[in-house]
Amino acid sequence: MNRFREYLKTKKELIDKYLDSFLPKEDDKPTILHKAMRYAVFSGGKRIRPILTLFGEEMYTGGYTKAIPAACGIELIHTFSLIHDDLPALDNDDFRRGRPTCHKAFSEDVAILCGDALFAEGMRLISYEGVNWSVSPDSIVKITGIITRTLGSRGLVGGEIMDLLSEGKDISYEDLLFIHTHKTADLIRASLEIGAIIGGMGGEALDSLSKFGEEIGIAFQIKDDILDIEGDEKLMGKPVGSDEKNKKATYPLLFGMDKAKKELHDRIDKALNYIEGFGDRAWFLKELAIFIRDRSY
Amino acid sequence: MNRFREYLKTKKELIDKYLDSFLPKEDDKPTILHKAMRYAVFSGGKRIRPILTLFGEEMYTGGYTKAIPAACGIELIHTFSLIHDDLPALDNDDFRRGRPTCHKAFSEDVAILCGDALFAEGMRLISYEGVNWSVSPDSIVKITGIITRTLGSRGLVGGEIMDLLSEGKDISYEDLLFIHTHKTADLIRASLEIGAIIGGMGGEALDSLSKFGEEIGIAFQIKDDILDIEGDEKLMGKPVGSDEKNKKATYPLLFGMDKAKKELHDRIDKALNYIEGFGDRAWFLKELAIFIRDRSY
Repeated sequence: MNRFREYLKTKKELIDKYLDSFLPKEDDKPTILHKAMRYAVFSGGKRIRPILTLFGEEMYTGGYTKAIPAACGIELIHTFSLIHDDLPALDNDDFRRGRPTCHKAFSEDVAILCGDALFAEGMRLISYEGVNWSVSPDSIVKITGIITRTLGSRGLVGGEIMDLLSEGKDISYEDLLFIHTHKTADLIRASLEIGAIIGGMGGEALDSLSKFGEEIGIAFQIKDDILDIEGDEKLMGKPVGSDEKNKKATYPLLFGMDKAKKELHDRIDKALNYIEGFGDRAWFLKELAIFIRDRSY
Repeated sequence: MNRFREYLKTKKELIDKYLDSFLPKEDDKPTILHKAMRYAVFSGGKRIRPILTLFGEEMYTGGYTKAIPAACGIELIHTFSLIHDDLPALDNDDFRRGRPTCHKAFSEDVAILCGDALFAEGMRLISYEGVNWSVSPDSIVKITGIITRTLGSRGLVGGEIMDLLSEGKDISYEDLLFIHTHKTADLIRASLEIGAIIGGMGGEALDSLSKFGEEIGIAFQIKDDILDIEGDEKLMGKPVGSDEKNKKATYPLLFGMDKAKKELHDRIDKALNYIEGFGDRAWFLKELAIFIRDRSY
């Protein structure tokens, strides 16, 4: 296994271990809620976002000790957004990562509240639990500012609603970029920024990381939309063609596959440019950018 | 108008003014989301929770200057919880405060995401915006700890799911108390605690306020359930009898009206006891406890 795969595997295991220790046990009251939370969180996610948080700290300090609660909090918040996104009133998806979605495995009321509870618990880990891991209160204020802006009506939630409103419409490149930026890229960028801030980074270095995060985030979404057309159902754990079926506004569907692939490559090139100055210290970010471009699942 | 009514009115106006300034404008993109957020937030709420936050600071410092963002954040979070609670998959309520609920006035997807956005924006005001109002980072960490615990699966969301699970069941007093405590009392208690912490309170004084907050919170819910049977539809802005129709587990329905009224009075007496030591400094809390007991809407 190469260094990148090894890093992904080790850090995924670490994140999974801490998610298990932070989340309430299944037999804690109310049990159905805690079962649903664990079902949704432990469903084979790649943990890219929390790994970015850990690497953000590691890049600057050489280790990841303080960023663990924030990294886990970000994964809980990502899970919350997927659960709500899958609901019948939104994307109405029955499967995710090869398993029934939360509202299918449980029920719609449980899924809505499960998402809310994961949001709250994620915010607790990012904003409060960090203190027990020696994150300074000043850094906590900064990172709660970042995560709450990232999630609000002008961030993730704003991107989701624009995505829903664009179904079946021939939207402009600007509107598509708004959706990609806010629905996907914002949280990926924030994951890396939060880790870097916990590690002590600021100024121009942090700006470069932010720009890198935004580019790979947009590229990640373009690749997702390409895979929804060209991907292998077995590798992906979900049916392909769902964007076309749901009349989603995506890059390849709106502007064609060739243009989508060119944009993907351009974004990744730009991203790599932003982190050139870090040299080998940013090795994982370089590998990740290439992985996002070339992945088949 | 007496001192209490005057205080409620003045502070409600203040909260409304700042909510208006903190919330994105209706014509900001995505407009439908911002319209829905404002529709739900400006729907004639009494603003009891944020007023408790302001008074918590005022009790200790004689003024309310730093607690305004946190107070507004708490009201946004309260609104989020009402929007999700009213959804078809949960309580399926068509009216609140005399107007169509958010999913009726807009649509279900908008209502779900509107709740999520208010949650995020509320957390931003509580956790981040406070710094611009001279709340110390140490206090911010404390209050984010309180609000996130208050909302999670062992707090508000846990209370809501137990409430849903108890429909049509003859539940125990302990389970009913779990619902009242977490679904209603936790946020009322937290509202007061957060203001007091921003004001600089700690130790035994804060403990007494917490206990007061919990008692009036439970009493508030018992009174709500009494009014759902005995109240005047016009004054309340919603139909009475909905608990019985929805087979809700409530104090009067499970244990009878006499016992419910006795419990309400006992809780208020206990609450008043907890704040006796503050003397006239706690004047508003005394009046509020009596208002909760005697209100007819």
